Amino acid sequence: MDQFQYIKKGQRVLGTTSLALRNEMLEAIASELESSVKEIEEANNKDLLKAQQENLELPLQKRLLFNSKKIASSVEGIRQVAALADPIGKVKERRLLDTGLLLERVDVPIGTIGMIFESRPDALVQIISLALKSGNGIVVKGGSEALQTNTTLVEIIRRALQDFSVGSDWIVHLTSREDVRNMLELDHIIDLLIPRGSNEFVRYIMENTHIPVLGHADGICAMYIDKEADVKMAVEVATDAKCQYPAVCNAIETLLVHFSVAKEFIPAFKESTKKWNVVIHGDNETQKLITCIPTTEEDWKKEYLDYEINIKVVASAEEAIDHIARYGSGHTDAIITNNKETAQLFLQEVDSADVFVNCSTRFADGFRFGLGAEVGISTQKIHARGPVGLEGLVTSKWILTGEGHTVTSYEEGERHYLHTNLPIEGKSMMEGSLS
Amino acid sequence: MDQFQYIKKGQRVLGTTSLALRNEMLEAIASELESSVKEIEEANNKDLLKAQQENLELPLQKRLLFNSKKIASSVEGIRQVAALADPIGKVKERRLLDTGLLLERVDVPIGTIGMIFESRPDALVQIISLALKSGNGIVVKGGSEALQTNTTLVEIIRRALQDFSVGSDWIVHLTSREDVRNMLELDHIIDLLIPRGSNEFVRYIMENTHIPVLGHADGICAMYIDKEADVKMAVEVATDAKCQYPAVCNAIETLLVHFSVAKEFIPAFKESTKKWNVVIHGDNETQKLITCIPTTEEDWKKEYLDYEINIKVVASAEEAIDHIARYGSGHTDAIITNNKETAQLFLQEVDSADVFVNCSTRFADGFRFGLGAEVGISTQKIHARGPVGLEGLVTSKWILTGEGHTVTSYEEGERHYLHTNLPIEGKSMMEGSLS
Repeated sequence: MDQFQYIKKGQRVLGTTSLALRNEMLEAIASELESSVKEIEEANNKDLLKAQQENLELPLQKRLLFNSKKIASSVEGIRQVAALADPIGKVKERRLLDTGLLLERVDVPIGTIGMIFESRPDALVQIISLALKSGNGIVVKGGSEALQTNTTLVEIIRRALQDFSVGSDWIVHLTSREDVRNMLELDHIIDLLIPRGSNEFVRYIMENTHIPVLGHADGICAMYIDKEADVKMAVEVATDAKCQYPAVCNAIETLLVHFSVAKEFIPAFKESTKKWNVVIHGDNETQKLITCIPTTEEDWKKEYLDYEINIKVVASAEEAIDHIARYGSGHTDAIITNNKETAQLFLQEVDSADVFVNCSTRFADGFRFGLGAEVGISTQKIHARGPVGLEGLVTSKWILTGEGHTVTSYEEGERHYLHTNLPIEGKSMMEGSLS
Repeated sequence: MDQFQYIKKGQRVLGTTSLALRNEMLEAIASELESSVKEIEEANNKDLLKAQQENLELPLQKRLLFNSKKIASSVEGIRQVAALADPIGKVKERRLLDTGLLLERVDVPIGTIGMIFESRPDALVQIISLALKSGNGIVVKGGSEALQTNTTLVEIIRRALQDFSVGSDWIVHLTSREDVRNMLELDHIIDLLIPRGSNEFVRYIMENTHIPVLGHADGICAMYIDKEADVKMAVEVATDAKCQYPAVCNAIETLLVHFSVAKEFIPAFKESTKKWNVVIHGDNETQKLITCIPTTEEDWKKEYLDYEINIKVVASAEEAIDHIARYGSGHTDAIITNNKETAQLFLQEVDSADVFVNCSTRFADGFRFGLGAEVGISTQKIHARGPVGLEGLVTSKWILTGEGHTVTSYEEGERHYLHTNLPIEGKSMMEGSLS
């Protein structure tokens, strides 16, 4: 495919630029977007009109809107990315293998990131900024509903970069549905795919490509209320975890309640969530305590993404941990307890990206974690897990410099390795510390 | 499949054991193997006899041999693994999100590792030790040629572990060819696959599974001799990189030589490697300097794994870098130069797992790098890259402990995040530092 002809070379140039230059490029994009509000709004209006004509669902239409307020917020986002520390160039290990033979492991861009997302035009601006900051090439495919807006945004970004010798060859904008299928085959070009959208959409991507995927399909999160829980705290935290914003992956879908606090906790939780009319599915024991819908086996596997929840009464922390191992999606699970040993058991045995004690699952988020930016939340165990910041767009490279060292002189000669670990401060040999 | 019934629970128990206990288990395995030499040799003799009867290729027969000397070396290997630092439990980030709300990112076992390899029985012992050390479950499938030996080894290992309450449920030994195909589908059980064997074998695995794969298919490594190279050093290092042991992935397949040193370097290289009768494929310029086979387009993509090499004369470092980008496999590439700027350009622009200056590509190896153990060499960009030690069997988990903290109190209330980074020394909250 011709459109990919220059991306690798473009990325190679971008990947070796200084932090100062990458930040200058980010600022150029921010300014150009600021002075192109009218142009963006015109394009966005075309998308909105088409969406109305085609009776697109209202929430989708809402997400499609990219007005001056949203543009300003995107521009603010770019400036925040510029303010972040450099994600590349950091030395992670430094070891003197022998006199004159110095090894370093250095953080470098992954290469090319593929991002596929539905409607939201702000996602396009955000991922291009993050790719630029981390020195990666980027292949983006947005939703067809936002085609005019996205195309205009990419034009503006290219215009902003035209005075830089780096240029914008490291960006490829795909626009057709067919392009998505092609993208999944591009394992010689794309090093990491980041899909954003519905669970089904993400699962489809994961099941149809050999390219590594950063993300998560389901977010089936549980909270276990232990026998030694502070019940008042438990009610407050569980209410937050379900009702503060239920349409997201880190909201809980299941409450596991120790039988000895069930009688106190379950009615109090129902009372606390009354104003949201939460639909409660309860097991046999729960049904004895409150009016609710009897749970089915299928319920434990559902991500409601709504004011709806399962409650199960359990006999022990181990039973709760077993339930999570069986039905959870490895995203975020929490325990409420005042017993340190039980908390530790839960922290050790629950195999999820995020495991919390005495706080809401809703904290599972890159910004709340203080990562500066959020590339996504991953339930994969490989590469990056949980909320992922810019470090998710980075890999490492081993650098070894010698003075003519040969393996022969060690294995057939008399030389011996020193293997002395050195401090990792300072620039890498890639950037001027080469002696 | 029934044989996988207990592995996850077995791993969950193993994953929470102390370093001391895991090391005790390793020592128990080492001792049991030491006192079972006869039993192992008997089983191995059956495999060897069958291999002879079936006229298995001689190198394969040689790799199959597992006599008392090789057993002793395997036992020594287990004790070396026991001596290594604990790969799990380390705190990688620690951040106070707010008063009483403490975040940690902690290294934990990945879960279950799937290892598929051809003949060598020592690989089975090694990977089981590494899995045990890192708290991972392990599914192993060895070569059918080594069936008796491998089965006996697994029996002995289970016997060694029977007095430990952890047991050996975390090990699953697969024996049939059909099992391999099944293994590739087990993405709900196996978190990471490590295939060892021929390039074709590894490529087959990579192309037929959605499970992440740690490893590499081709090792097409190049060395560039710059115009500012010390030619004597270049000849010595290039000779080492090709001839010290050509049957391995980190030996070079291609020499890229700057035209201004070609006349001096190429004939000297030919002279230096004469005793190994190295077959040289040369481009037009090389053919003017020495007698050699004219290169074809296909040659640049070949991993000879033998005393055979391509030589190309190039006009610049950039041309060498372009050649590597086009034909290399992202494994290990080196430059010989006394010019710092050229070395830095090469270090920055060559996108390979290992990029070396003035030393042999043969140093690309976990032991030579001082990693203590080598799980494999990865040309993937995700998770682990280059020579991978025990840290390749580890992922991380986010742990957050609060005192009833809710997101509501930040987003609809008056609380603000502190996001104070704390020192990462000391045990994690998973292991007793919970307050």
